[in-house]
Amino acid sequence: MFSKEVYVARRQQLLKDVKNGLILILGNGDSPFNYPANTYTFRQDSTFRYFFGHDLQNLVGVIDIDNAREYLFGEDVDMEDIIWTGPVPSIHDRALEVGVENSGSIKDLRKLVDDAVFAGRKVHFVPPYRAENVNFIAELLHIDKEYVKAYVSVELIGACVKQRSIKSDIEVAEIEKAIDNAYIMHTTMMKMAAVEGTYEYEIAGKMEGIALAGGGPVSFPIILTTHGEILHGHDHSLQIRKGRMIVSDAGCENPMGYCSDITRSVPVGGKFSSRQKDIYEAVLSAQTLVPTLVKPGVKYSDIHLAAVTRLGSALKELGLIKGNIQDAVNCGTMGLFMPHGLGHMMGLDVHDMENYGENYVGYDKKNIRSTQFGLSSLRLGRELQEGFVITNEPGCYFIPALIDKWRSENKCSDFINYDMLEKYKDFGGIRIEDDLLVTRDGCRLLGKYIPKTVAEIEEQMS
Amino acid sequence: MFSKEVYVARRQQLLKDVKNGLILILGNGDSPFNYPANTYTFRQDSTFRYFFGHDLQNLVGVIDIDNAREYLFGEDVDMEDIIWTGPVPSIHDRALEVGVENSGSIKDLRKLVDDAVFAGRKVHFVPPYRAENVNFIAELLHIDKEYVKAYVSVELIGACVKQRSIKSDIEVAEIEKAIDNAYIMHTTMMKMAAVEGTYEYEIAGKMEGIALAGGGPVSFPIILTTHGEILHGHDHSLQIRKGRMIVSDAGCENPMGYCSDITRSVPVGGKFSSRQKDIYEAVLSAQTLVPTLVKPGVKYSDIHLAAVTRLGSALKELGLIKGNIQDAVNCGTMGLFMPHGLGHMMGLDVHDMENYGENYVGYDKKNIRSTQFGLSSLRLGRELQEGFVITNEPGCYFIPALIDKWRSENKCSDFINYDMLEKYKDFGGIRIEDDLLVTRDGCRLLGKYIPKTVAEIEEQMS
Repeated sequence: MFSKEVYVARRQQLLKDVKNGLILILGNGDSPFNYPANTYTFRQDSTFRYFFGHDLQNLVGVIDIDNAREYLFGEDVDMEDIIWTGPVPSIHDRALEVGVENSGSIKDLRKLVDDAVFAGRKVHFVPPYRAENVNFIAELLHIDKEYVKAYVSVELIGACVKQRSIKSDIEVAEIEKAIDNAYIMHTTMMKMAAVEGTYEYEIAGKMEGIALAGGGPVSFPIILTTHGEILHGHDHSLQIRKGRMIVSDAGCENPMGYCSDITRSVPVGGKFSSRQKDIYEAVLSAQTLVPTLVKPGVKYSDIHLAAVTRLGSALKELGLIKGNIQDAVNCGTMGLFMPHGLGHMMGLDVHDMENYGENYVGYDKKNIRSTQFGLSSLRLGRELQEGFVITNEPGCYFIPALIDKWRSENKCSDFINYDMLEKYKDFGGIRIEDDLLVTRDGCRLLGKYIPKTVAEIEEQMS
Repeated sequence: MFSKEVYVARRQQLLKDVKNGLILILGNGDSPFNYPANTYTFRQDSTFRYFFGHDLQNLVGVIDIDNAREYLFGEDVDMEDIIWTGPVPSIHDRALEVGVENSGSIKDLRKLVDDAVFAGRKVHFVPPYRAENVNFIAELLHIDKEYVKAYVSVELIGACVKQRSIKSDIEVAEIEKAIDNAYIMHTTMMKMAAVEGTYEYEIAGKMEGIALAGGGPVSFPIILTTHGEILHGHDHSLQIRKGRMIVSDAGCENPMGYCSDITRSVPVGGKFSSRQKDIYEAVLSAQTLVPTLVKPGVKYSDIHLAAVTRLGSALKELGLIKGNIQDAVNCGTMGLFMPHGLGHMMGLDVHDMENYGENYVGYDKKNIRSTQFGLSSLRLGRELQEGFVITNEPGCYFIPALIDKWRSENKCSDFINYDMLEKYKDFGGIRIEDDLLVTRDGCRLLGKYIPKTVAEIEEQMS
């Protein structure tokens, strides 16, 4: 944990921003794997960890704004259990460790919430995403579980987003540790990807082992595939074959819970073909443009557009796109090649705060999400601020089903060379991703530099 | 998957054993990690996988016994989604792959179950262990979710236990693959444990990476600790220090979902002290006795007693136990040193079928669970049968809180040398575990032999 002052200050700010009512912050419990006693590795809720610090099961934090009281609730281990668990601090001691004065059992929590409900006071909570916590909130607040989402507090979401969007120096330092471990993951991947016939799961497993040996889980299920064009795929069953690119999108959480999110795309065997090199350098030219544009006050949606415009220009040089590039972008052409967004915020969650709802995090009243295919998938569109940590991850994919669909609809046909595209249906995809900190007048690449140019990757794989 | 005939035969047997009604077998969905779209790695429900084969999310299998019809229910990927997922077989095709003729959507399932409920037919299901599936069953059967467990089918549990307890040759072959990967996990652990100052999580992470690189997850969260006396601990935060034993209890699932479960205990640095060697060899003498006793018709509770008796004799030689050893065992003395059971069944679950309820799996009408501390924790007490796969995992621990409690209660004080025990409170614990197949006239050690004697371990760690 950070020092207790960090958590005290965060809660004080939250109390000021939310103004009145009772703030209820549920920690996570264990998630069963294949029977009740066999669970997945515990993952604390990020909101709980941000404000109450503890990385432990079945705790609930409460901030009673109206009475300026803070509480930590949970069940103490009883004497019988100490035989099995060894000595364990009490909930009271755990509360004091993060500067919280009051503590109690879950029964005490029920009483406190009941009293607030009967007094007609607002009980604030952010959207629960685990069935156990949906059920628990339904029970605590006497709401039908299907309607829990209707009672979510937009004020609390706003106050959480406001604080958590701006990373402090100590948070950035933790993020950089997670990226430095991702450096080992991806450079190891490059070495393994040089050997044709290796199974994807052997590489992904090795990478996840590196994450775990660094003290945290992977920040999301590793994407490691020679079919990068399948964007929603986590299959790792194939043997890698020369002629395919591997898309490796993987990061880890460090012991403090902060994330990394890095993508590298490399040719199986270690040498880019000229076609692979062409597409790779098109994506890289967009990816290296981004840091020159990132600074406070610029909308990330504008940088997304600049990046896809650069990608489009490069694809035009290759003959895949034709006509005026600005008109092509306006038509939505680039969605065919890059149907996802340029990036998202990152922090205690790899898509930071995504459980609150993407639009609360990445958009605001002035900046509304686009409905254009591709740009509509951008998670972060609003103006950047100093202290944001964001990902920069353009990609280029040749998705057979999408190409067929667009072609049949004659979509943007003034700008797309569909005949030439047919020959790329066996290409797969490429994505390149780094993590950036928005600074006062620009940005800084976070963590150790990971081989990225064609020459650097071929060198690493040799 | 196995060939479809395997699943057809299993379901045919189930249909015969349950006799009438509708059997409902829910597959698992994804478990959210920190927001809805970021999930833990998918883990299929073992009952579903056993009878319906597929290792995929959100499927439901139904066997309508009365009408001799089988169904697979789930949602087809629509055309829009194929852009993101690539080509995906239909639910109908997936059904045929496992020899099931009928298929439908979740809406169709609701209709089928509703019709059965209104017709007053029995709907059989085994106990759900994930909140999502508890909620889903409550909804399907119109039962209050708090009462779902009251409607569980003991007949279905019995029929599942009957089949799944006896492992076929193809199942044993899969289990042995998982053990062979555990060989790599544990021998790697031994090398790493030779280096003082290594963090426990570095070793555990490396081991989990090996599991994953073999194509399956760990079969349970790895126990890797220099505090083996803390039986319910999954903490990996310590640096390993000479003078401590490491207890490493870890296994994996192979790509077919079958488990391994192996424990080795090794001295940090690679050399046993004479005290460590004494306790280690006491445990090993019990562990090597077990395979000489295992055969069909023998109760595993009797073998548990034989093993703790052997352990007790060895501890008596060391002076920790005194008096007549049989009387000491009858008094319950051995529970202080080994408060857990000798072993459990293993298959698609590391504690096989534990979600059905331990007593349904490990006990029967003739063999009731003991209430004596220690033996009461034995998961498998009934008579062994040919085809059982079981673990053999005696241990010896010095648990300060338990020693203090027993001493204060003067428990078994005729048999325990409490003064001498005080000097062992800093010892920690030792456990040694292998997996056995019960054969026609004895048993067979499964998988590759993993270094186990003092000499073999010191050799491996050098």
